[in-house]
Amino acid sequence: MTSTFQADAALSVNASSERLVARLIDDAARRHVDIARTDGGTVIVDAGVNAKGSAEAGVLIARICMGGLGRVARRIAFDHAPLWPSFIEVHTSNPVLACLASQYAGWSLSATKEQTGGKKFFSLGSGPARALAGKEPLFDELGYRDRHDRGALVMEVDRLPPQVVIDKVLNDCGLAPQNLVIAVTPTQSVAGTVQVVARVVEVALHKTHVLGVDLGEIVEASGSAPLPPPAPDGVQAMGRTNDAILYGGRVHLTVKRDDAAKRLAAELPSSNARDYGRPFADIFTSFNYDFYQIDPALFAPAEVWVSSLESGATYHGGKVDKPLLDAQWSAT
Amino acid sequence: MTSTFQADAALSVNASSERLVARLIDDAARRHVDIARTDGGTVIVDAGVNAKGSAEAGVLIARICMGGLGRVARRIAFDHAPLWPSFIEVHTSNPVLACLASQYAGWSLSATKEQTGGKKFFSLGSGPARALAGKEPLFDELGYRDRHDRGALVMEVDRLPPQVVIDKVLNDCGLAPQNLVIAVTPTQSVAGTVQVVARVVEVALHKTHVLGVDLGEIVEASGSAPLPPPAPDGVQAMGRTNDAILYGGRVHLTVKRDDAAKRLAAELPSSNARDYGRPFADIFTSFNYDFYQIDPALFAPAEVWVSSLESGATYHGGKVDKPLLDAQWSAT
Amino acid sequence: MTSTFQADAALSVNASSERLVARLIDDAARRHVDIARTDGGTVIVDAGVNAKGSAEAGVLIARICMGGLGRVARRIAFDHAPLWPSFIEVHTSNPVLACLASQYAGWSLSATKEQTGGKKFFSLGSGPARALAGKEPLFDELGYRDRHDRGALVMEVDRLPPQVVIDKVLNDCGLAPQNLVIAVTPTQSVAGTVQVVARVVEVALHKTHVLGVDLGEIVEASGSAPLPPPAPDGVQAMGRTNDAILYGGRVHLTVKRDDAAKRLAAELPSSNARDYGRPFADIFTSFNYDFYQIDPALFAPAEVWVSSLESGATYHGGKVDKPLLDAQWSAT
Repeated sequence: MTSTFQADAALSVNASSERLVARLIDDAARRHVDIARTDGGTVIVDAGVNAKGSAEAGVLIARICMGGLGRVARRIAFDHAPLWPSFIEVHTSNPVLACLASQYAGWSLSATKEQTGGKKFFSLGSGPARALAGKEPLFDELGYRDRHDRGALVMEVDRLPPQVVIDKVLNDCGLAPQNLVIAVTPTQSVAGTVQVVARVVEVALHKTHVLGVDLGEIVEASGSAPLPPPAPDGVQAMGRTNDAILYGGRVHLTVKRDDAAKRLAAELPSSNARDYGRPFADIFTSFNYDFYQIDPALFAPAEVWVSSLESGATYHGGKVDKPLLDAQWSAT
Repeated sequence: MTSTFQADAALSVNASSERLVARLIDDAARRHVDIARTDGGTVIVDAGVNAKGSAEAGVLIARICMGGLGRVARRIAFDHAPLWPSFIEVHTSNPVLACLASQYAGWSLSATKEQTGGKKFFSLGSGPARALAGKEPLFDELGYRDRHDRGALVMEVDRLPPQVVIDKVLNDCGLAPQNLVIAVTPTQSVAGTVQVVARVVEVALHKTHVLGVDLGEIVEASGSAPLPPPAPDGVQAMGRTNDAILYGGRVHLTVKRDDAAKRLAAELPSSNARDYGRPFADIFTSFNYDFYQIDPALFAPAEVWVSSLESGATYHGGKVDKPLLDAQWSAT
Repeated sequence: MTSTFQADAALSVNASSERLVARLIDDAARRHVDIARTDGGTVIVDAGVNAKGSAEAGVLIARICMGGLGRVARRIAFDHAPLWPSFIEVHTSNPVLACLASQYAGWSLSATKEQTGGKKFFSLGSGPARALAGKEPLFDELGYRDRHDRGALVMEVDRLPPQVVIDKVLNDCGLAPQNLVIAVTPTQSVAGTVQVVARVVEVALHKTHVLGVDLGEIVEASGSAPLPPPAPDGVQAMGRTNDAILYGGRVHLTVKRDDAAKRLAAELPSSNARDYGRPFADIFTSFNYDFYQIDPALFAPAEVWVSSLESGATYHGGKVDKPLLDAQWSAT
């Protein structure tokens, strides 16, 4: 399928997130992140490895992760019988660039034991620096490559990246060491939970791509997902950010054509997946921790509305599953 | 009736929106608006004629349209059974200036075929530049006239304004050509839909004025309305932004006196109008597209709460009509 | 009990609110506050004594009151059957510093008739300047003292403070007169109502402290409370801001340990108090206006969720009381 998506070459996801990166560094204390610099000057923002981090750090890192092209905020429920007390809300008028060219965790960054001189390292890099490196085939499909002299990368990992990985990022991005900022957000941290739950729209965009729907169709996107605390167990922590999106996530897309709207409303929701209906940690465990055994259709919001500019109609599909979330997250 | 409204002469709706206008021009790419300059230097912001525009552009233009004196944001529902997935939220502590002296589309700007050298042009100008020109009798009632060397105007029209209209605006506003910015938002565009739905509080203020309630009563105002996509048909597009307010709009006003609160709660809601209950496009069509046949009482939010500072009581009137909105907007 | 709370010495509640204080002064007109300067140069911001004030002023003063370490916003309901039309929403990743070291109204500031040369004066000062003075034993418990050359104080009182009180504040804070800003928000004003309702999280933190739960447990906090108009009667005005929190307030805390989460969910809600169930003004009147007769356990949000980082579980307690709020606030 040929994509009709046209990236605006005037938009630099690294330039438009630069101001937010500066704020993360300047206001480190209030967000409980630690700022370290490598010998070369690369800035490492620890948002949960040794530092405490915070929800406020997670929100700002999520905005950086969207290349500055999205709005992300915490919300607290004030309706009569809320689904959950806290939420993350996301909006973007640049869904493909913000979510796929920047926020998607698609850049595989690893180092062997020999290279690190210790444990082997693996992380999927996300955020605007991906678009400087352009190492993923996705960038050719998008027809987008960023050019900017500064860059920011987010790593959802439980330790700081080794120098060999930093060097690889610098080299692939063509950045001077002091012009790269890497934010590290462990899955089991508060900031990490926020920045993953803030992927509710990105997950919808990624599944749109997986379904083979033309990304050029996507015009606007908004989403919300309930925000749980992190779980102390690694698999459970990963499980609950997934559950937040798969069973509690809602996305409203605006697309160009009616058939795309109709199809996305029917096929996007997570309920289309074979493995739908059980907590993510259970599914993952049942497949012996092998991601590639999980039906990829599961990675999607619970409920979607898709508005068509062609017809003006809004199609609706899926639904949130409050009982499943309560059973997982609420103490009894 | 004499108005006790006292405009604060220290408030310039053009000065307080200037920073937002600069942001609209500087960040044009991310909001998908095109910036053009006439030979004289007047800036024309195309948010939906040839440019794609965006919801983000619509929100910023709505804030400009309120003279920088209101807060406007997109929201996504996170309650259990939402009225609609997306909303516009509006707040202002300067309801009369923001809504009536600036946001109200009250400045009739037209040009004949002879003047344009092509098609005749008609638009109702809105936004802060209206208060520089002060051509409408409303400004005498408000006792407000802005003085500022820069100005911004919003036109809900499907083509760029001809030079003869620009010249009239410049002349009436007393502005140098390079100091005027005109944002153009067609009714059938995403940005246009947002900026019209963002008039939910303005519509309440305008009806307050039509009812002859003293504008000096109004102290605070907030409102929300569901945000549909634009409809491809012109009459339907106009119909659905009206339906968003008439059948889905909610406004909370704070007024000074108890009798004004009681009266507004009873008389403000759209349900008081003879034509209430049918989609706006149907009503408009049934009157052969003659606006002046429609009961003016229809132009109002669906549901209002009016709090009285005199008594501390809050009066409630009207209600939202989810079935009507669903029947109009949702695909089946 | 020993507190394990560790204040971050790098955080200055006065420095981080300085930008907000400048905005309050610079944009006084749009927020309807009056700016006066004493002979010595101390800035007095009148947000409701002689000036009209506004909800927008109340929100900004609430943010200042949290030492710039919280997010405060007005919201309007858009769910199907809202608890109330307007809300205040609060978030902070620094709950103890923002709420207890800054926002809590704990600094007793009084002057005799002889000292004022008129009526005697009494106010409980709140806001970041408290942390410069450090006159309250609470600061020793928190192990926090701010050092900054500028400061801001909020007084919930119905007249401007006499010079003798200003001098005491300057002296205790070690500030040059021109470097102190005092914002005055009467209980019966719109701004005053907003800034008190915005204490919904602070009230939860204060009760946590009263319960003897280690403040070092508290990691994150969010809250919402319905925003009524002020009541014209002083006791009723105080009653309804209390009712907003006691019967309509909701707080989501994140704490470290599971036993703290469990205990707070059970003991925090206002429903634990002997006097729970009647409007605050009735309770206060029944005790002959003697605050110290009221069960201190009453000063708490209606409903809480407390998430534990230790277990990942979220405990829930209490509930909002819509009938009580409607009976107090809604006209019939």
